[in-house]
Amino acid sequence: MAEGLVISIDAMGGDHAPEAVLDGIEIIARRGLGARFLVHGPAARITALLEARPAARAACIVRDAEKVIAMDVKPSQAMRQGKGSSMWNALASVEEGEAAVCVSAGNTGALMAIAMIRLRKMDGVHRPALIASWPTARGFAAVLDVGANVEADAAQLVEFAIMGEAFQRAVRGDLRPKVGLLNVGSEDQKGHEEIRAAGRLIRESGVDLDFHGFIEGDDISRGTVDVVVTDGFTGNVALKTAEGTARLVAGFLREALSGGVLSRLGALLAYPALQKLKDRMDPRSVNGAVFVGLNGLVVKSHGGADGLGYAAAIDVAVRMAGSHFREEVAANLRRLAVAEPAPAAATGAS
Amino acid sequence: MAEGLVISIDAMGGDHAPEAVLDGIEIIARRGLGARFLVHGPAARITALLEARPAARAACIVRDAEKVIAMDVKPSQAMRQGKGSSMWNALASVEEGEAAVCVSAGNTGALMAIAMIRLRKMDGVHRPALIASWPTARGFAAVLDVGANVEADAAQLVEFAIMGEAFQRAVRGDLRPKVGLLNVGSEDQKGHEEIRAAGRLIRESGVDLDFHGFIEGDDISRGTVDVVVTDGFTGNVALKTAEGTARLVAGFLREALSGGVLSRLGALLAYPALQKLKDRMDPRSVNGAVFVGLNGLVVKSHGGADGLGYAAAIDVAVRMAGSHFREEVAANLRRLAVAEPAPAAATGAS
Repeated sequence: MAEGLVISIDAMGGDHAPEAVLDGIEIIARRGLGARFLVHGPAARITALLEARPAARAACIVRDAEKVIAMDVKPSQAMRQGKGSSMWNALASVEEGEAAVCVSAGNTGALMAIAMIRLRKMDGVHRPALIASWPTARGFAAVLDVGANVEADAAQLVEFAIMGEAFQRAVRGDLRPKVGLLNVGSEDQKGHEEIRAAGRLIRESGVDLDFHGFIEGDDISRGTVDVVVTDGFTGNVALKTAEGTARLVAGFLREALSGGVLSRLGALLAYPALQKLKDRMDPRSVNGAVFVGLNGLVVKSHGGADGLGYAAAIDVAVRMAGSHFREEVAANLRRLAVAEPAPAAATGAS
Repeated sequence: MAEGLVISIDAMGGDHAPEAVLDGIEIIARRGLGARFLVHGPAARITALLEARPAARAACIVRDAEKVIAMDVKPSQAMRQGKGSSMWNALASVEEGEAAVCVSAGNTGALMAIAMIRLRKMDGVHRPALIASWPTARGFAAVLDVGANVEADAAQLVEFAIMGEAFQRAVRGDLRPKVGLLNVGSEDQKGHEEIRAAGRLIRESGVDLDFHGFIEGDDISRGTVDVVVTDGFTGNVALKTAEGTARLVAGFLREALSGGVLSRLGALLAYPALQKLKDRMDPRSVNGAVFVGLNGLVVKSHGGADGLGYAAAIDVAVRMAGSHFREEVAANLRRLAVAEPAPAAATGAS
């Protein structure tokens, strides 16, 4: 299914690079999907590490890049000094059409900034966004933006809605995903003016989304909608707060089940079930956020990912590359443009 | 310990009023703390309901108020039309010195708006805030603002820090609570300008807080700090997202433990431990957010609270009333005023 697919890899991004990155490739390569990897990083070091990873070694083409973008560098610095780095070159492979998608666990701000230079924004998109897949009581919701921008005005929130809806259709196969705007109440008069204006815009534009209206924080996990639209500051705080809460509850559970002989025996009997629960809640299984709104596909892995986590991010890349995501976004944006002639003309000129 | 304490109750606030409210009073009254309750609501109905709640009946003085503020009314309407309602009169009892603290499960916006009219802001406070107690791996953190204001500038965030720190000292007996600003990264250049400016203000003002700097969403549950400062929009989304996540994980656990004979047997053996975990995660046990920054104490119960949840909110009221919270806030604000002569003069004149 992924036969012929080429994935560009920033081997030096992330806290455990390049070992964790190559471990991730090894896991995917062993599945025999037929995908190939363009691995950007210091060639001698990468080649040596591939010795112990035979499946990856057979699937990788190593491209030498000695320069590495540090995890704590500012986006502006990364843009000025990033040329020739593993991240820069990994994105360039997508720009030049050598690869269908790029995966990096590097500095988010730097990745975003360089991706904007190399891949540029899609026609009609003002701000690219970062989408996370969020486990819910009913499956997975797409939440965006989770950190590409700290602010978003009404028009940008509408674009996020369009991109998130197309993502959910393309990646999850959800035919008619329901879209909600994250707010502090479900009534029309609640929240920031930008959110209220975005709600009106979605309703009045001809974009034809299944728009649910406002949702609150607890609706995300409930699965009230399939696509949660918010600004990057709120989305990032919500995502990390949820991760922290899941970890806290898991800790409470461990503590409770190690509290006495009967509890321990009970935990032993329920071990397979608890293990399945643990796997279900493993943040590594939902690793891989997607930058959307660019002329090219970019998947961001968590910086702390190990091999298993990185493999999940590659999985997302494979799914994105095999989908019609960009065509879906473009079609949605065209509908918006037809409904609103004035802004369409303005964006068409840029 | 609560001997002589008088608590003013809005009997008609909340989805299950007045029954749940009176159930909550009954639970507290049975403990024999010696507190008395001024219960505002339709006298005939309340008196009839108290028949079946003997401890509450002995501790309550019913004050007739036929008017009720609806759960979906706008704050501006509540201010214009609220006079004589159970909520209005419950707050007036605090203003007039009859009661030390008011508890309401009514409409948050209306409660805030009427409290501002009746109790007015404390000297030196520009915006009152709503504080929630948040369970963490290390105890409880105070998170504010969780919804009194949708926006906050740098100076207001500093005030929130001061009020939250005083709250944590007064209510939790935490001698030197650590304060953090919620952001999307821990580096100085991250996030909104208001947050960065608030960080600089706290460091440069003479307010003498144990300031940790920026924290991220997952730091809240981790207990990285004791006081989490944020604007009311972000705080409300974070709080509800955490509630939703905890509920989702609990649902996954229930599902896992009912999946087979061994799992069920295991769950049976571990039942007391799992029950303790359930109690620990019961959102009712942390019910009761506190409005701070007013000349009077106001506790907001969740609108959907049952008797047990309402009793937790009364507990918070008892603890607040027995503390030196307002003196602590005033002392912190004075320190800030000394460090920054210009804004001090401006607020002094208002």
